[in-house]
Amino acid sequence: MSKPSIPQGTRDFSPAEVRRRQYIFNTLRTIFELYGAQPLETPSMENLTTLMGKYGEEGDRLIFKILNNGLHEKKDADKDKLNSEWNNVLSRPYSTPVVTERALRYDLTIPFARYVVMHQNDIAFPFRRYQMQPVWRADRPQKGRYREFWQCDVDMVGSTSLINEAELLCIYQTAFQKLKVPVTIKVNSRKLLAALADLCGMPEKMIDITVALDKLDKIGWVGVANELKERGIAEDGIWQIEKVINVKGTNDEKLVAYADIMQHSAVGMEGINELGKTLAYYRSLEFGIGDLDSDNGREENIVVDISLARGLNYYTGVIVEVVCSSEAVKMGSIGGGGRYDDLTGLFGLKGVSGVGISFGIDRIYDVMEELDVFPKQLVEGTKAMLVNFGGENETYALQILQQLRAANIAAEIYPDAAKFDKQMKYANRRGIAYVLLPGDEERQKNMVSVKNFETGEQKMMSVGEAVISLQS
Amino acid sequence: MSKPSIPQGTRDFSPAEVRRRQYIFNTLRTIFELYGAQPLETPSMENLTTLMGKYGEEGDRLIFKILNNGLHEKKDADKDKLNSEWNNVLSRPYSTPVVTERALRYDLTIPFARYVVMHQNDIAFPFRRYQMQPVWRADRPQKGRYREFWQCDVDMVGSTSLINEAELLCIYQTAFQKLKVPVTIKVNSRKLLAALADLCGMPEKMIDITVALDKLDKIGWVGVANELKERGIAEDGIWQIEKVINVKGTNDEKLVAYADIMQHSAVGMEGINELGKTLAYYRSLEFGIGDLDSDNGREENIVVDISLARGLNYYTGVIVEVVCSSEAVKMGSIGGGGRYDDLTGLFGLKGVSGVGISFGIDRIYDVMEELDVFPKQLVEGTKAMLVNFGGENETYALQILQQLRAANIAAEIYPDAAKFDKQMKYANRRGIAYVLLPGDEERQKNMVSVKNFETGEQKMMSVGEAVISLQS
Repeated sequence: MSKPSIPQGTRDFSPAEVRRRQYIFNTLRTIFELYGAQPLETPSMENLTTLMGKYGEEGDRLIFKILNNGLHEKKDADKDKLNSEWNNVLSRPYSTPVVTERALRYDLTIPFARYVVMHQNDIAFPFRRYQMQPVWRADRPQKGRYREFWQCDVDMVGSTSLINEAELLCIYQTAFQKLKVPVTIKVNSRKLLAALADLCGMPEKMIDITVALDKLDKIGWVGVANELKERGIAEDGIWQIEKVINVKGTNDEKLVAYADIMQHSAVGMEGINELGKTLAYYRSLEFGIGDLDSDNGREENIVVDISLARGLNYYTGVIVEVVCSSEAVKMGSIGGGGRYDDLTGLFGLKGVSGVGISFGIDRIYDVMEELDVFPKQLVEGTKAMLVNFGGENETYALQILQQLRAANIAAEIYPDAAKFDKQMKYANRRGIAYVLLPGDEERQKNMVSVKNFETGEQKMMSVGEAVISLQS
Repeated sequence: MSKPSIPQGTRDFSPAEVRRRQYIFNTLRTIFELYGAQPLETPSMENLTTLMGKYGEEGDRLIFKILNNGLHEKKDADKDKLNSEWNNVLSRPYSTPVVTERALRYDLTIPFARYVVMHQNDIAFPFRRYQMQPVWRADRPQKGRYREFWQCDVDMVGSTSLINEAELLCIYQTAFQKLKVPVTIKVNSRKLLAALADLCGMPEKMIDITVALDKLDKIGWVGVANELKERGIAEDGIWQIEKVINVKGTNDEKLVAYADIMQHSAVGMEGINELGKTLAYYRSLEFGIGDLDSDNGREENIVVDISLARGLNYYTGVIVEVVCSSEAVKMGSIGGGGRYDDLTGLFGLKGVSGVGISFGIDRIYDVMEELDVFPKQLVEGTKAMLVNFGGENETYALQILQQLRAANIAAEIYPDAAKFDKQMKYANRRGIAYVLLPGDEERQKNMVSVKNFETGEQKMMSVGEAVISLQS
């Protein structure tokens, strides 16, 4: 028999890990509900046609496809068809429905768009939903990148108001504050990126410029300038872009400077206006919860950053990205999102604008571990264990056990009348705080001895007293 | 563009459905934790070799297999290999690792066994874990049967004590009591089924007898007797089985009568002894939480039923099944489980006995809907909506909004300064209880009007007063 294993890029979550992950999910869920967002869940499997072509060529390649069932039960006549379709599987990533017609969810956004289109008549718009589910990608596994990982999205669709953008900034702020993760939130607009292309006189080069700028953090300006040149941007254009990149100052100062440089780009002025309004809405919201002394509330960690690009092609307006600002942690983006003007158009419903953000649960988990900010009591579990002395004492212990549970005390009995040392060793390994000893003396007196595992202190008391002392 | 859809047998869960499902999950989670069980999660994908051959021939057929990625990128030389392996896919359900090496989780038991074997050195035994995750089966979809559905299991491994069986009965009782689902819990032992085969003098026919008996509810004794005959059981054997089936009375009376009939079957006497002990432990546990007047606590809905078979072959001792006892509901089993003596042996770890039960979440959900026992406040969500009057009033509204949320009141603002009627219609469709009206007058007085949507009552008050009145 070979040693069992799990597929590369997947993980088992131990009890302690599940509890910590639940803590993150519950914290986020509570905040989302406070903001009026509603929970949604979609199936793990989607029709392959729903997913293919939505994530670019790379995405098509990375989608996990499910083999149709019962292929070996087909009649011989059908097998000819199957064999010819098999050749299609071998020649392109867009596999044939005869061999595979279902695939695993690749993200939460496309299934959400599909849901909105299917249920457009039942939904009260604007519709705010949140969704926390796993997604699967056949990426090469590496540190912090898994083949099964969790996404957590909040989206607001059916409204073009920038209040939505501002609310999402508040959600990010509140969430990371509650999780005790210090962050920087970068904001930009796809429209400013389009304006850069305008400045170069090459509006068709927006994607090239975006891709190059995205590397600013990694390769510095000289590297970016070289890449821009390779991608066919003229010297003068590169100089214009450098001027924009070099703008420093507060968010308001940056927007004023951009407006000066981009005054002849209609799309640029639109982007600047939208970013300004988003920040103004954000300040009004923040004003409501204090920081009244400061002009801009919790804005010190929100940074307008024109080099922020975000990979996905469907963004059209404000975009946003979250990174951990602690020096101690090296981790890429732990969240991001933006405005998309026509996502549901992919499935035939035009004119529904939306904006959404995502939380990278697995990376947030890793950051919280590194920062050691998970609440200590999360790993607790069982609070009291009854030692099993067998015979009549066992019967007596079972009766005590249910009284503890009825008082909401997580409790268990060692199920076998094993050696005392073995039982204590188990309680110790489990990190159980109290051990209850219902021996002969205790049973005859209708009492129980309670031992505090940490202090070693042991005291005999009535069962009622034990319940009260364990509840505190 | 074709209308979007989801794969047959899968479901989207709307906000109201997600909240109700969460209610079930949270109720069960709370109980499991009280009983000292620890949460575990395993990957959606397992290696195909982990799953194949574990669920019988039918299971192998119904496992969803994942096509390996990047097949179209293989070199031509490798494609010869692929083509020959493809023929294996077409000839047997046990597909080849070259074409498919991963599959979707089919149940929670085998992954649990795999986990225990992989982590045997880190686990403190006896190990009690619970797990609530979806599983996938390529079954033909029908009412109450889905291709993606949720299982929820509690298992206790590493102890042969029948206290575990009794604790699981208590978990079932407490869970269905909390969920307000009236149930009958049937118990039996695989050992009694083996004894029936002994009685017939045909110990090798145990499975045949089990399969036939399992249909007692549906086809009655005459039908079962016919099937037994077809399956080669002699007249005398059938007569012995009928005698056992005809035993009526309390659980204790049944066990006494069985002992009389099965006195020459060692395995039968063992099974009777185990059932008796399990019920005794159960009564001790129940005694702890009252029902002191009655001799056997909450035992009236626990029924020893010798026709109970449970399909899975790995059970070896006590088995259990839960059905809803309400006349109003027609639904098969909503839970079941039993003792298995050597599950981890499948993966090379011998001698670890376990016992577990399962909750059929999707069926329990359906039953609770039919009985209308979900708490009413679950669908609530947003409690207060601020009407958006635009301009300065919008700014004022945003400030109020964050004060509500800071006081833990789920609130939202209509994001656009749309027509008043449109905003009210939205609030109505969403079922929002209170609408807050921050107009010119309110803003100038630093107050807000609060409208109770149900009574129609409207009152102007300070924001602080509004917060307090909405909190209550």
